[in-house]
Amino acid sequence: MTEHSSGDAVLGPNRYGKAETRVVHIDRRADGDVLTDLNVSIALSGDLTDSHLKGDNAHVLPTDTQKNTVYAFARDGVGAPETFAMRLARHFVATQAPITAAVVDVKGFGWERLAAHSFRRAGTEVRTARVEHDARGTLVVSGLRDLVVLNTTDSEFAGFATDRYTTLAPTADRVLATAIDARWRCAAEAEADADADGWDGRYVRVRDCLLAAFTGTYSWALQQTLFAMGARVIAEVPEVVEVRLALPNRHHVLVDLTPFGLDNPNAVYSAPDRPYGLIEAAVLRAGTVADPRPW
Amino acid sequence: MTEHSSGDAVLGPNRYGKAETRVVHIDRRADGDVLTDLNVSIALSGDLTDSHLKGDNAHVLPTDTQKNTVYAFARDGVGAPETFAMRLARHFVATQAPITAAVVDVKGFGWERLAAHSFRRAGTEVRTARVEHDARGTLVVSGLRDLVVLNTTDSEFAGFATDRYTTLAPTADRVLATAIDARWRCAAEAEADADADGWDGRYVRVRDCLLAAFTGTYSWALQQTLFAMGARVIAEVPEVVEVRLALPNRHHVLVDLTPFGLDNPNAVYSAPDRPYGLIEAAVLRAGTVADPRPW
Amino acid sequence: MTEHSSGDAVLGPNRYGKAETRVVHIDRRADGDVLTDLNVSIALSGDLTDSHLKGDNAHVLPTDTQKNTVYAFARDGVGAPETFAMRLARHFVATQAPITAAVVDVKGFGWERLAAHSFRRAGTEVRTARVEHDARGTLVVSGLRDLVVLNTTDSEFAGFATDRYTTLAPTADRVLATAIDARWRCAAEAEADADADGWDGRYVRVRDCLLAAFTGTYSWALQQTLFAMGARVIAEVPEVVEVRLALPNRHHVLVDLTPFGLDNPNAVYSAPDRPYGLIEAAVLRAGTVADPRPW
Amino acid sequence: MTEHSSGDAVLGPNRYGKAETRVVHIDRRADGDVLTDLNVSIALSGDLTDSHLKGDNAHVLPTDTQKNTVYAFARDGVGAPETFAMRLARHFVATQAPITAAVVDVKGFGWERLAAHSFRRAGTEVRTARVEHDARGTLVVSGLRDLVVLNTTDSEFAGFATDRYTTLAPTADRVLATAIDARWRCAAEAEADADADGWDGRYVRVRDCLLAAFTGTYSWALQQTLFAMGARVIAEVPEVVEVRLALPNRHHVLVDLTPFGLDNPNAVYSAPDRPYGLIEAAVLRAGTVADPRPW
Repeated sequence: MTEHSSGDAVLGPNRYGKAETRVVHIDRRADGDVLTDLNVSIALSGDLTDSHLKGDNAHVLPTDTQKNTVYAFARDGVGAPETFAMRLARHFVATQAPITAAVVDVKGFGWERLAAHSFRRAGTEVRTARVEHDARGTLVVSGLRDLVVLNTTDSEFAGFATDRYTTLAPTADRVLATAIDARWRCAAEAEADADADGWDGRYVRVRDCLLAAFTGTYSWALQQTLFAMGARVIAEVPEVVEVRLALPNRHHVLVDLTPFGLDNPNAVYSAPDRPYGLIEAAVLRAGTVADPRPW
Repeated sequence: MTEHSSGDAVLGPNRYGKAETRVVHIDRRADGDVLTDLNVSIALSGDLTDSHLKGDNAHVLPTDTQKNTVYAFARDGVGAPETFAMRLARHFVATQAPITAAVVDVKGFGWERLAAHSFRRAGTEVRTARVEHDARGTLVVSGLRDLVVLNTTDSEFAGFATDRYTTLAPTADRVLATAIDARWRCAAEAEADADADGWDGRYVRVRDCLLAAFTGTYSWALQQTLFAMGARVIAEVPEVVEVRLALPNRHHVLVDLTPFGLDNPNAVYSAPDRPYGLIEAAVLRAGTVADPRPW
Repeated sequence: MTEHSSGDAVLGPNRYGKAETRVVHIDRRADGDVLTDLNVSIALSGDLTDSHLKGDNAHVLPTDTQKNTVYAFARDGVGAPETFAMRLARHFVATQAPITAAVVDVKGFGWERLAAHSFRRAGTEVRTARVEHDARGTLVVSGLRDLVVLNTTDSEFAGFATDRYTTLAPTADRVLATAIDARWRCAAEAEADADADGWDGRYVRVRDCLLAAFTGTYSWALQQTLFAMGARVIAEVPEVVEVRLALPNRHHVLVDLTPFGLDNPNAVYSAPDRPYGLIEAAVLRAGTVADPRPW
Repeated sequence: MTEHSSGDAVLGPNRYGKAETRVVHIDRRADGDVLTDLNVSIALSGDLTDSHLKGDNAHVLPTDTQKNTVYAFARDGVGAPETFAMRLARHFVATQAPITAAVVDVKGFGWERLAAHSFRRAGTEVRTARVEHDARGTLVVSGLRDLVVLNTTDSEFAGFATDRYTTLAPTADRVLATAIDARWRCAAEAEADADADGWDGRYVRVRDCLLAAFTGTYSWALQQTLFAMGARVIAEVPEVVEVRLALPNRHHVLVDLTPFGLDNPNAVYSAPDRPYGLIEAAVLRAGTVADPRPW
């Protein structure tokens, strides 16, 4: 039996941390409060073998401490989710010798200001940031989730492969609806970080591209719409080199009203919850190698 | 054994129907599409004893038929959720002799138009309508849910009752956050119905009152804020006679940063999911008797 | 302006309390631990006008205190959910002069003992108890939710009413599936309470009746199955006088495999999430008047 | 512009498929029905460039067809989730020339038989299977999720690292609770597949090991309990070579009752939903290389 095993069992890749610490920060400014509402999840890895094999926790900074650190670091302001995630990830690796890598995932919930001191939750959309930091460097992935959009027309689906199990009829005019899940990374995170306000501005620009491409693309396939969305980001946000999109195809089914003596001129649809299609792809800037990690 | 019983068991109040039929309607207008997205739940009651006691379904219009009716009725347009719920409720009572009462509950999901044919889901807020129709008449209740709001200051909580289990300290400055659940009814539903567009306009006016009162009230208790919200509606929307509000108190807890050598000048909060306070009250126009039914 | 109004607005029925306090109690016995896992929601009403109209909280026992009370009362054991709810409801009315009525709702989560000190969560089923206490007395409602059951056969649905919107074909053999939501009350709660263990035993007896009737009834309608379930409780649990059941009809749709050259001998079903039927009824012991309150 | 790009944008890794097709199969046997209840998600990849870049769907088998295939394949019985997932994954790769890889994820919901034709949903636990199939071979991953367990004692947490943000006190006796998420793979999937019943038997043996190790391990850290769980599987289920565990630490916090003049002899706990610890690790059979893919 070595330090890494017990009988025939050997410890493989491992990590631990505090998940879903919700922190709300209020920056009380003369021209109106700024509200930041985050959910922070931390995962640390390194030399944690003794905790697993012997229950020796000398290398284990408690997850409770990680939670405290989130709150303490928010004291002087949070900034962009990417910035906050980087501060945290670098802190744990820098200060805990056994910890060699940190992953920090942040969800940001949007609030719209109604008055100097009043806010309204601004939609279903969630902004995300993920930082992976180790000796090799820092990966920063920005993103958004649950941005729900729908086109009432300008979407076809035809010319597809068929087999003995195919019953779907081609359609020249369908509703196309999805909940955008997009993540992207930049070429040089260090530079991007130089401008603390850069993350927020870039978020708006990427989001605008995604919406404009979804809205403006005549679609023959959700795959094509997806690629158009990623390509628009690549074309218009020069620092982004990789975009990953996951788009559920939220089917809207034209209801057959003929049993009731009625036509249905693309007016009435049902919208079943499940099953749904799921289209996933990365779009890369020419010359870029896809990051090998799952985000 | 009578028709209503089996041994010592007697059938009491009962109802049945199709719940959660999701219907999406697109009104394709020259000046841009109008998208209506509803979730409709129906409950019918009447002479249904034989179905319960004998399994004789002669009086039971299948819930599948109710679903079909929702789709068929949407063919020529949906209108306000209240209007659609009234059409459905009256239809079942008018056309099925054994059915003497219908309750139709509608949830409406908001979409914001991005382009002539493109939409974005517009927030967490859900619009609701409930119609109860029987021989005595028609009750129409309008409402909204999950309108999440937060004030960063101008909220105190002090001077409260205490007992041996009280540990809460009074506070002169706290965050006040809630998810507004409001329902309201008008004095004369029939008249209100005369103007098909009236429901939509009134919805906006009531919602504006709720937000204005939440935002503008200096609060010594969430109860006081709640009453101010209802009173604002009564004051400014003359046709409304009863408002019911249910406001969860979504606690934001100032984090104690002193163990880390830091102060916390009302900047950093945790926001636990549970438990939460729940404040519920009706606000009535003077001279109005509270409706005895639960909505 | 009176104490109860502001302008034309008058305060109607109101209540407040702490919702969803989760308390876990461990009774460490020589023969193995007993684990009780509850979610407790409290709603108090009484003379709370000044809090709403003036923000004067002298009559308001903080919801935080209510939470503390839950924990303190659990110190010496929790007992049946009904017992715990009664203790809490009576405490608030007895000790807070302005409070004249209390409603306490409890959810109990089941755990199965694996070893003297080890447990496993025992299914999706939730036990419920609701106590309404005021000067007129105490209503105790026991219940269960999310007990999911399915019969693969012995269920028909035919002979139903039809109209121009009916497309459903009658069926002589269908799957019948539901998630049982049942609540019941006894004739004399005070007596029932005399035997602290009585609630737990009755819960098992009622649950057994519900399952036996669901399993053993040849069904021509879910209404008929529902009534059989309630009637079985009335027949076999003499202290119960009223049972309320809400049974979603979780449709299982036989998939048409003929496009693939296959028959489907009642073997393959889809199971859409929504819409679903919802059947609700009370079953009363002969001579009992239905309780007028919603539970 | 090449086939793979549009301007500077290049298509990266991509896949598509039908997610969450729910299929229920009833095997009507003389000795009682067997109910299988699955949720199937399919993701296909291969030569799908033209769909993304040109909207040319000639290589796209519709996700609707994938759904149909799930139902058609269930006609003659489903078997173990692993077996069903393998049949589906191999089918798509074998019959659609452009498709070179398939991932099929299955969730299985457990039902306990109450009578010959009657069933009850058997707990919160979900059985999982994942098959990844391409020209290199077939990976089969078995698993379970949401198996919620709790030890009332025999758990310590002390001797941990500290820093300026640490406030947690060491404890010699705490509640340890988690929701087991476990996935495992065997050495030779082809052989394992030879015995169609093997998957079900192995599932039971692995599950028993996980529960026995959780229950029987005196814990100094959840990491140590996790490793003991994986090591037990490695020791007792010889065909398993890799186990991955993700264990949320569902904190149970001893409530301070001293403000109420009460002690708390490890009796009363609160159980906040969030945040929670999350401990993740792989446990490998000696000599095994960890699979590089995320499962």
